Amino acid sequence: MKTRVGILGYGNLAKGVELALRRTTDMELTAVFTRRDPSSLKIASDVPVVSVSEVEAWKDRIDVMILCGGSATDLPKQTPYFARFFNVIDSFDTHTDIPAHFEAVDTAARESGHIAMISVGWDPGLFSLMRAYAAAVLPDGKDYTFWGKGVSQGHSDAVRRIPGVKNAKQYTIPVDAALEAVRNGEMPELTTREKHTREVFVVAEPDADHSAIETAIKEMPKYFSDYDTTVHFIDEETFLRDHSGMAHGGFVFRSGVTGAEDEHRHIMEFSLKIDSNPEFTGSVLTAYARAAFRLAKMGQSGCRTVFDIAPALLLEMDEAEMRAHLL
Amino acid sequence: MKTRVGILGYGNLAKGVELALRRTTDMELTAVFTRRDPSSLKIASDVPVVSVSEVEAWKDRIDVMILCGGSATDLPKQTPYFARFFNVIDSFDTHTDIPAHFEAVDTAARESGHIAMISVGWDPGLFSLMRAYAAAVLPDGKDYTFWGKGVSQGHSDAVRRIPGVKNAKQYTIPVDAALEAVRNGEMPELTTREKHTREVFVVAEPDADHSAIETAIKEMPKYFSDYDTTVHFIDEETFLRDHSGMAHGGFVFRSGVTGAEDEHRHIMEFSLKIDSNPEFTGSVLTAYARAAFRLAKMGQSGCRTVFDIAPALLLEMDEAEMRAHLL
Repeated sequence: MKTRVGILGYGNLAKGVELALRRTTDMELTAVFTRRDPSSLKIASDVPVVSVSEVEAWKDRIDVMILCGGSATDLPKQTPYFARFFNVIDSFDTHTDIPAHFEAVDTAARESGHIAMISVGWDPGLFSLMRAYAAAVLPDGKDYTFWGKGVSQGHSDAVRRIPGVKNAKQYTIPVDAALEAVRNGEMPELTTREKHTREVFVVAEPDADHSAIETAIKEMPKYFSDYDTTVHFIDEETFLRDHSGMAHGGFVFRSGVTGAEDEHRHIMEFSLKIDSNPEFTGSVLTAYARAAFRLAKMGQSGCRTVFDIAPALLLEMDEAEMRAHLL
Repeated sequence: MKTRVGILGYGNLAKGVELALRRTTDMELTAVFTRRDPSSLKIASDVPVVSVSEVEAWKDRIDVMILCGGSATDLPKQTPYFARFFNVIDSFDTHTDIPAHFEAVDTAARESGHIAMISVGWDPGLFSLMRAYAAAVLPDGKDYTFWGKGVSQGHSDAVRRIPGVKNAKQYTIPVDAALEAVRNGEMPELTTREKHTREVFVVAEPDADHSAIETAIKEMPKYFSDYDTTVHFIDEETFLRDHSGMAHGGFVFRSGVTGAEDEHRHIMEFSLKIDSNPEFTGSVLTAYARAAFRLAKMGQSGCRTVFDIAPALLLEMDEAEMRAHLL
């Protein structure tokens, strides 16, 4: 019997999960749950669309629920709540709030006897794994994480709130010279400004003061003031044509030493080039949903992160095949 | 109490493990076991050197034994044998023989109630992990593994067996154009010749026929005939000065697609630049030795590979700290 998967929410990430499930043979989408009026939601798969108000009735018909809400306001409430009824998995990505989210989810999942996985995606997620493996192998070393080139949703939103801005997209771009210095094992100390630049494409309202907008962006504390930022004003047509993509990516490095006198230097590098951020993240969530349900079937409960999951649990392939072909 | 580690064998890899243990605070080297006369062996640490013939007497004084023998003849016998007395870990790296090695070790470890980890290092090892994570996340894709630039011990040995060769070192070098094609997402079909070149440095015996040696190398089936090989004849002094290093490295890629019509392409890349192969491999073995003993303390037994190990088991750091700092 296939693992029965529910999706909660139906934005870009949920659509990525829906597509990823089609590439498995051991899992299937069973239903999509929504806070909207279910009759108003058209989905790509031929499965029921159910109101979240009826979710409890699906308690025994869903093996794992993939929560596709946002980290700012949805997941802090949704993940502990739905862990009362289901094995759940989320992509909570507010790094500083992870410990608190973990505690809330762990309490709920232990009480109900479910598995709940949090912070699954590529960062947090695959990048976290790389940082962990690298720290285990090279305990004396230094980590570097670079993001981009890709869109930062939070920064784009911040620009859109500036008066006179009709639409905006912000790209985070790693600085090549910094990447090269790390890659060469120079173990540089890098300031925020030296690691990434920011590039903003703005569609201004007619008659808006471009130079005021540019200043408002560049001087915005936390978001832009610590970075070298380039601002481009473009028309709406160009914006829709050239800036609707969802590509992203990034790099994780560890530069570390071994030897009696630290005389040998090693560089571990992991990088991603992602054409579609929601589809890639959806694929990661799908693999970890498989693992979550496997843990639940073993009788485990509580909150888990990618650090707790043995890689073998992620694949459809059996272990003998993995040893023969992947080891 | 610190985890008590034994090292069996005392070649370059063992010395790498010995150094790696010094960078931990939760593990310590307890004894080195050797097939040689223990009094003839000088080791860097102030611990007993013990003859393997007395190893059984150390049954309750070693928590995990790191086997540092070779894959060709040592480990196929040693790992199943020592799994009768100890939790063990090896770096068995003959890819095609892994399934048979696993079976033999698993049987021995289950019977004695120990944990035995096999094939730990960087390939097999970290590279295998990357192949597994990548296959889990991008089930529709293609893997590429490149090795080098680094010394292949087996190929160097093969050259040294040619009459007239006094000493030799063989470097495996990934072809830049192939790396770039993969990195660009072109998903090329690559022949053996297109992926790597081989470069050989030979110290010939006086009066040896250089051109005969060069032909013997280039036409050697399996080892060289499928590759573009460059042969350099150098004097012994140059050889010792320039070719005593133990640097290595390599690349693992997965190029895969998502989307309803495979329209989005993603590239995952993992690479290593290693100054000292035995020290780096020794560091990986040390981290997995920690995990092996943790599994044994949970009451588990049998053979394990890197696929079975949750990343959290590899680090000294506790999980709350990992979630706060690495996730």
